[in-house]
Amino acid sequence: AVAYFQATGKRVLLDALCRYADYIDTVFGTAPGKKRGYPGHEEIELALVKLYRVTGEKRYLHLSQYFIDERGRQPHYFDIEARLRGEDPAAFQHKIYEYNQSHLPVREQREVVGHAVRAMYLYSAMADLARELHDQSLFDADQRLWNHLCTTRLYITGGLGPSRHNEGFTADYDLPNETAYAETCAAIGLVFWNHRMLQLDCEARYADMLERALYNCVLSGVSLDGQKFFYENPLASLGAHHRQEWFWVACCPPNIARLLASLGEYIYAVNDKDLVVHLYIQSTAQMTVGGREVTVRQETIYPWDGTITLRLGMDEPSMFGLRLRIPGWCRNAQLKVNGDAFDIASHLEQGYVRVERVWQADDRVELELAMPVERMYAHPNVRQDAGCVVLQRGPLVYCLEGADNKVPLHRIVVPRTAELASHFGPDVLGGVTVVSGNALAEEDTDWTGTLYRSWPASLQPGAITAIPYYAWDNRQPGEMRVWLREGGS
Amino acid sequence: AVAYFQATGKRVLLDALCRYADYIDTVFGTAPGKKRGYPGHEEIELALVKLYRVTGEKRYLHLSQYFIDERGRQPHYFDIEARLRGEDPAAFQHKIYEYNQSHLPVREQREVVGHAVRAMYLYSAMADLARELHDQSLFDADQRLWNHLCTTRLYITGGLGPSRHNEGFTADYDLPNETAYAETCAAIGLVFWNHRMLQLDCEARYADMLERALYNCVLSGVSLDGQKFFYENPLASLGAHHRQEWFWVACCPPNIARLLASLGEYIYAVNDKDLVVHLYIQSTAQMTVGGREVTVRQETIYPWDGTITLRLGMDEPSMFGLRLRIPGWCRNAQLKVNGDAFDIASHLEQGYVRVERVWQADDRVELELAMPVERMYAHPNVRQDAGCVVLQRGPLVYCLEGADNKVPLHRIVVPRTAELASHFGPDVLGGVTVVSGNALAEEDTDWTGTLYRSWPASLQPGAITAIPYYAWDNRQPGEMRVWLREGGS
Repeated sequence: AVAYFQATGKRVLLDALCRYADYIDTVFGTAPGKKRGYPGHEEIELALVKLYRVTGEKRYLHLSQYFIDERGRQPHYFDIEARLRGEDPAAFQHKIYEYNQSHLPVREQREVVGHAVRAMYLYSAMADLARELHDQSLFDADQRLWNHLCTTRLYITGGLGPSRHNEGFTADYDLPNETAYAETCAAIGLVFWNHRMLQLDCEARYADMLERALYNCVLSGVSLDGQKFFYENPLASLGAHHRQEWFWVACCPPNIARLLASLGEYIYAVNDKDLVVHLYIQSTAQMTVGGREVTVRQETIYPWDGTITLRLGMDEPSMFGLRLRIPGWCRNAQLKVNGDAFDIASHLEQGYVRVERVWQADDRVELELAMPVERMYAHPNVRQDAGCVVLQRGPLVYCLEGADNKVPLHRIVVPRTAELASHFGPDVLGGVTVVSGNALAEEDTDWTGTLYRSWPASLQPGAITAIPYYAWDNRQPGEMRVWLREGGS
Repeated sequence: AVAYFQATGKRVLLDALCRYADYIDTVFGTAPGKKRGYPGHEEIELALVKLYRVTGEKRYLHLSQYFIDERGRQPHYFDIEARLRGEDPAAFQHKIYEYNQSHLPVREQREVVGHAVRAMYLYSAMADLARELHDQSLFDADQRLWNHLCTTRLYITGGLGPSRHNEGFTADYDLPNETAYAETCAAIGLVFWNHRMLQLDCEARYADMLERALYNCVLSGVSLDGQKFFYENPLASLGAHHRQEWFWVACCPPNIARLLASLGEYIYAVNDKDLVVHLYIQSTAQMTVGGREVTVRQETIYPWDGTITLRLGMDEPSMFGLRLRIPGWCRNAQLKVNGDAFDIASHLEQGYVRVERVWQADDRVELELAMPVERMYAHPNVRQDAGCVVLQRGPLVYCLEGADNKVPLHRIVVPRTAELASHFGPDVLGGVTVVSGNALAEEDTDWTGTLYRSWPASLQPGAITAIPYYAWDNRQPGEMRVWLREGGS
């Protein structure tokens, strides 16, 4: 309803939605006669903030605040509700209230748990309320949860929630690859949450995580032709996992469509003093900075290379800060303003280089982000990735696919010293940068008649070709693998 | 009933059992009015052969033969039976008849499939019938199935059936370690089957597999104090898998008790011309070879070392062949007969050294099986064991346990060139030979604040101590791991 109103200016859906929200407000709350309930699947909380923002009606904000504040309090509402239905609360099908993050009041939660999509929507709403209500305690809780997620429970693809069982989180450092659930909607929720964290605090690490999810686990959720979708985004496949046209619970396809259609919202941000560039995506935007209209034209083929040119447009010169994100994956960035080198290191604020000056029309800013192929490793507590390496270039995580490589892929060993090159393949998967190099593969030609023997398989040299993870399963069915075995030399 | 009769000579249970078998014989069979059925869980087939052997009643043998011959024929009896119950055959809870090996007539089966215990009991009965009926087609089928199992679907511990879902087999080379089901009863069934294969053909590979299962997956099924049991025998554990006192479906505890109580049957075999030693276990046995009584006294502390002394006893000199198994794991065996070296290589028949001579009382045969610590590797198609090594000594597979080693165990890397030593630890786990050596372990002290980074964890040297797999989970709870990561150097 909010999106329809914003896109068309028509209130018909919005008015209906307001009546519905008003009704919900008559049922739930702390006032006498109301139920002290809240949803099992968080989502309305962030929606009510959206509704407040377009209508200006504070009661929607307060209803959202009520749901967030009430969540996880004792006596537990879901226990009460179960007894009212004549059920034993212990018979709850998901066993524990961690499943829907109602095990504790939200400000006391320190670990990301349970159903991953629900968690992302909850944390997003907490960030929304932290911003609208200037509630530092909600932001503090969100920061603790964010740190827990990104240091213990996040796939390198930005996927999250490894278990199909609860569609969610398991234990710290438990990140299985073949069986990774990593629902597309959870990665989309991670984009939502980090976007809101960025609005609270312009720290590049939030944009880094947003970008990691966006270019990997979110984008893998849809086929290159836009016709098929992944619900689950494993990091390895034996060849039987494929995108589907639709799902019984069809959240992911419209969610990804909505995200891609609204991508423009994520690229830039403004406040009174600054114009911020979070993402590098070819685009043109008009914004108001300190009361003045500014146009930004961004020219780039990012993520295929790291050269970005920004051209500013405005009616008259204007003093403001231009903040450009220096991505966490980038070790070497160069900046020029109207052709003159600008020292990034001495102007870096929370991962963003800030160029403050009187800008004028046709000012040109050139950012050069070095984008070599990087080897990435997982924390040694992640047993599923032990001895393995991921190839990454810029924000893109790469994978091997059977279509390009000799299978089985687990037989391939990438020497630590192997040189890896990248080149743009205009005819590959609609045009992607491909990573290639020399590796080794275990031979089995001399291994017959037994499953075990006292000397290992011999290794034969061979070439490997890696493609961006998001683009896998767009050719003939086959194996896929993100974490590659690494050899000593 | 058969065992009770054999142990006590009392027929009370046996007679009751015969009446029951007679009744079954009136219900099932090819004669008009009988049902063309057979069991969903194979077991009666081998039991009927046992009953035939003690009673001499051919009808029990023929009933067993009927069950084996009828199995898997079309129209499929389970389809017919389901329709008679008013059910849709497609609603079969295990989906496919591979589950109980009734997907094909047994002589057409070429792959070990389905529920592992059922499979072992079926193949055992097929071997029994092949022997009793001189049915080469059943032996041929068993040999094909045996080859398929041991080249594609057997754990190095002799465990089999990786999936909890069907308590059985999955796909070729699919041998997950943490989630290995590898039911104790399936390994016991493997002992049964290989014992029967040995009776058909005295090939050491059958005894090798029997021994592998016996000393590893079977023995791990019971705690050192005999009080607790594993149903499942995974090859890696994070520390939550423990033996239980009993199970809802309590097949494993009595099955292992029965096997250990009847272990004597597996050590020796005789025929008219030969006395065969399959297993090296301190023991004394009286046997009849070529009509003459022979006593064998076997002295050894096997499997702790490979020195075996056999002393023969008999009333008068007797010509026969003494066959001693040279285990497949042994690369260097020495034999002495009454102190004189005997050339094994030129007297090796199907993995057994055969010493034919006129034996007399007090003849002494000394076998020396070199038993160094061996590194074992899995076929490169086994993705779960890629880059990993197993330490093995003699018939024993070793594992690391948290009680002896720094955890997490997945961080430990055993260099390919690391020297590994063994010593007997009389106070360790009731007295076992322990394997120790120097290895490397990934450090995480410098890895904070992030789950992924662009350089790998550093490796620190440290000692490892490995214990026999069967003895794990007899101390404080903790991690366990059979397949260890191997480093290049």
